[in-house]
Amino acid sequence: QTNDQDEASLLLHETDGINIASLDSTYQINFRFRMQNRFELGSDASGNINRKTFLVRRMRLRSFGYLGRKNLTYQFQLGFARGDADIENSGFYNVLRDAVIFYKPTRNLELGMGLTKLPGNRQRVISSGEQQFADRSLSNATFNLDRDAGVFVYYRNKFKGGVRYNLMGAISTGKGRNFDVSNAGLAYTGKVELLPFGDFTLRGDYFEGDWVREKSPKLSIAAAYSFNEDAVRAGGQIGEKLYGISDINTFISDILFKYSGFALYAEYIKRDASNPLTYNADNDLRYVYEGTGLNIQASYMLPVYLEFAARYTAITPDKELEVATTATRQYTLAATRYVRWHRVKLQTDLTYQDVLLKNDILNSKDGWLFRFQVEVGI
Amino acid sequence: QTNDQDEASLLLHETDGINIASLDSTYQINFRFRMQNRFELGSDASGNINRKTFLVRRMRLRSFGYLGRKNLTYQFQLGFARGDADIENSGFYNVLRDAVIFYKPTRNLELGMGLTKLPGNRQRVISSGEQQFADRSLSNATFNLDRDAGVFVYYRNKFKGGVRYNLMGAISTGKGRNFDVSNAGLAYTGKVELLPFGDFTLRGDYFEGDWVREKSPKLSIAAAYSFNEDAVRAGGQIGEKLYGISDINTFISDILFKYSGFALYAEYIKRDASNPLTYNADNDLRYVYEGTGLNIQASYMLPVYLEFAARYTAITPDKELEVATTATRQYTLAATRYVRWHRVKLQTDLTYQDVLLKNDILNSKDGWLFRFQVEVGI
Amino acid sequence: QTNDQDEASLLLHETDGINIASLDSTYQINFRFRMQNRFELGSDASGNINRKTFLVRRMRLRSFGYLGRKNLTYQFQLGFARGDADIENSGFYNVLRDAVIFYKPTRNLELGMGLTKLPGNRQRVISSGEQQFADRSLSNATFNLDRDAGVFVYYRNKFKGGVRYNLMGAISTGKGRNFDVSNAGLAYTGKVELLPFGDFTLRGDYFEGDWVREKSPKLSIAAAYSFNEDAVRAGGQIGEKLYGISDINTFISDILFKYSGFALYAEYIKRDASNPLTYNADNDLRYVYEGTGLNIQASYMLPVYLEFAARYTAITPDKELEVATTATRQYTLAATRYVRWHRVKLQTDLTYQDVLLKNDILNSKDGWLFRFQVEVGI
Repeated sequence: QTNDQDEASLLLHETDGINIASLDSTYQINFRFRMQNRFELGSDASGNINRKTFLVRRMRLRSFGYLGRKNLTYQFQLGFARGDADIENSGFYNVLRDAVIFYKPTRNLELGMGLTKLPGNRQRVISSGEQQFADRSLSNATFNLDRDAGVFVYYRNKFKGGVRYNLMGAISTGKGRNFDVSNAGLAYTGKVELLPFGDFTLRGDYFEGDWVREKSPKLSIAAAYSFNEDAVRAGGQIGEKLYGISDINTFISDILFKYSGFALYAEYIKRDASNPLTYNADNDLRYVYEGTGLNIQASYMLPVYLEFAARYTAITPDKELEVATTATRQYTLAATRYVRWHRVKLQTDLTYQDVLLKNDILNSKDGWLFRFQVEVGI
Repeated sequence: QTNDQDEASLLLHETDGINIASLDSTYQINFRFRMQNRFELGSDASGNINRKTFLVRRMRLRSFGYLGRKNLTYQFQLGFARGDADIENSGFYNVLRDAVIFYKPTRNLELGMGLTKLPGNRQRVISSGEQQFADRSLSNATFNLDRDAGVFVYYRNKFKGGVRYNLMGAISTGKGRNFDVSNAGLAYTGKVELLPFGDFTLRGDYFEGDWVREKSPKLSIAAAYSFNEDAVRAGGQIGEKLYGISDINTFISDILFKYSGFALYAEYIKRDASNPLTYNADNDLRYVYEGTGLNIQASYMLPVYLEFAARYTAITPDKELEVATTATRQYTLAATRYVRWHRVKLQTDLTYQDVLLKNDILNSKDGWLFRFQVEVGI
Repeated sequence: QTNDQDEASLLLHETDGINIASLDSTYQINFRFRMQNRFELGSDASGNINRKTFLVRRMRLRSFGYLGRKNLTYQFQLGFARGDADIENSGFYNVLRDAVIFYKPTRNLELGMGLTKLPGNRQRVISSGEQQFADRSLSNATFNLDRDAGVFVYYRNKFKGGVRYNLMGAISTGKGRNFDVSNAGLAYTGKVELLPFGDFTLRGDYFEGDWVREKSPKLSIAAAYSFNEDAVRAGGQIGEKLYGISDINTFISDILFKYSGFALYAEYIKRDASNPLTYNADNDLRYVYEGTGLNIQASYMLPVYLEFAARYTAITPDKELEVATTATRQYTLAATRYVRWHRVKLQTDLTYQDVLLKNDILNSKDGWLFRFQVEVGI
């Protein structure tokens, strides 16, 4: 049923992947892939090595495009590495990451439905392929809002004078990536971003490091709030199943500054829960980590695309949670060689972990972690 | 090892996907994808809402084509949404849906080997992307023959005078989608279709709704029979593992009529089992749903591609099964806006469920279900 | 962001798949797929049939290519069939098979990082799509080193006079395909190959059968050794989790000869373990199969691409293991019709299994296995 009228063009771009478009520009399909292969070395605080491993940390396929009209777009992403599958908590090998449909009725307004990232902390929203450390921070791991199935609204505009503001909102299941439990509760998330000095070059507020060496200072300040009603998992959208349900409130603020190869990122997250400690009949405990997360990271990129970065991360539980969990500090130094932007790069980092509230339940320990990672993709 | 002689053409078609073909037409590879994103709202019979959820109901990738000669074709399909993976019953995240090779020795005869749909009830054989309700009926869910691994034979021809007849048969494992159990039993399935007024426009007997607004009446009448020897699962090819084995006989008849925007579809299914009630050592029960299913649905599509549909579904167990299960009636009203045939559409439906034989075992209840679904794909 | 400068060419080749390359030859992306659909019939030694089944044995997608420079290549492969997922042992549906990045600093030296096959026995390294029996041998199943995540080094060169030698090495986790356990132990693997009569035609030392009908005799002799420190699985990279850890030593030698349609392949493997018998608190046993494997297979291909082959396989445990496992002999006859090299072929084989050390624990029995398999792919 296809004929010459359906002829399509084929493009291959080093950062934008494979592009198939109908000659009349009504259809466009884009494909990309990437992999992150890693070596990890772990030791105790005295430097005795207790863990050596290699792994494929991420192996992703993704597609986006428009179908029939440029303001009707889709996007999907699959992740095939074990570390992405969340088997431990979901109970199944969950390869589906994004599957979302967007409609843009006006230049500034975008409506979405399906599964994708919630507008939470910036580091989580930035692709794992565009980070400046081998992986995101412990604060992110503990408090991020992750992905969820729901409806999404984005409004992006500028004030007179060039100050950009972005408003983002979502109503979603609150149970996370296409989870197998539903109830009468939903999650409500909103976020505001202000860019007082206008847009970053090449949308640089959504990749880490000042790879473009901004010619004038750029700043983005953001605040977000999420109310997760009747959450069933320890982190709302992530984590193990609780033994009961709990409402979860998460307040997030982050700030990003870039100028002349220098980048500074900081985020602060505070989480409260109505019922943080849940028990089963055997009195086993599963808890919502109520408390605060702080992550600060700074970097400088040399003109030869070699970047050095440092990070400080702290997670601190509320008083009430101290029976169950730990307060942890992490100190990380990193070096990244960008061979082709974030698409082909070599990364290495070294982390020292300091566990403040040690307890037997968790067996968290002080120690060192060294990582070396190679990423390739298009 | 490739060279200019292997140059290929690229097409992109709004309903037929991406097509890559060698210039000498000996090879053709087609790719398609689609997603169904859904919102569901459930309530009890009094309208008290007890369930709100969003989900990616289906996220599929598929390919078909021919390899070296036009009569040697293949087809495969992967499904990445949780609801497609059948984890509960299969015990694993089963993403493989189709993987089958066809050979067509003559114009009318086609032989296949691999995994694909059995020639069972029409609604099951029609793609989930070409339904007129947000999903198939309860009768289908209870009694369909689903997919199976085996060998397949199709013979399609016309009598003089234009009456089409299609004969379909399969010998298959009877255990379903690449299942991990095998024994000495197989399943034997046969189906006959009669199209007294000749072919439907655009093969319209295999998509729902009269999207083409047939200019003359079209009718298809079908009957199928399946004998599943030594079945190990509650539904033969689907369902949980039984505590024993049972032969299962399924008789299916369906009828489809389309004319001028109007479509009527009805199916009747009757299932018998040699050993429907199976028990384990603890006297837990797992059963084959012996009984009958009835599904009747009618629709009318306005010339602006807006369709209204109504459906009545009934499943009724045999006397013997009443200790274990329920009789259920469902009444559904639907509206569908076809933006681009079945490839891009908006669907919504409202169902009332009436459980006749209530019992404590199953906890099935009367109630309402509202669904809104967006589908996009190529 | 893409433009005409990114225009790409599209090729489709019957054995090399789909090829997308930038016109300036700096980028190339290749896609391939294949499926193996099979019928199996099993009987006891007297010919009483106790098992009939159809299955999709393999359904694979793969990609390789180079990114920006020809000496920076990647490769990934996904397998979607149940039999490839290793659910029983890994506890999850492991679809990721390869995800590896290679860098070639010189013509002869190649360095890799990620997940791919270890340089173990040749039959394992040869693709499952290029075998001459429906599947690999029992010796391979018992003793192969499979895939692993790690770093890989290959050095390939020729002595003066044309004798080729290949050196291969790897340091890897020793736990197998992206496994979820790591400890302080790694696996160290090395292999040497000698090809005294120079290269095989079309790299024929890495596909089975003499499909090219070598015009002069070709020979490859290889020896490999693997030391797996602190292995946690019964076969090191494969098999169930042990109840303890054990070092595993595997010595492998293989030889391949091809000439004028005739091919002979033999491999001998010997495995030792420091702690082969592991017990849990209930005294259940899980063991490393210490012992030897022998596989010899010979084939002759008629000029019409019809091949006949015979195989003898023996696995024999060490004395110490006889309490736990069996010695087994398998005799197999096969016929293969190559329609388009190994890409499209029909295969059938018949195996008789003779279990020498019968024991109740394992319930291994003498018997027959018939297989018929169709493979298609590009």
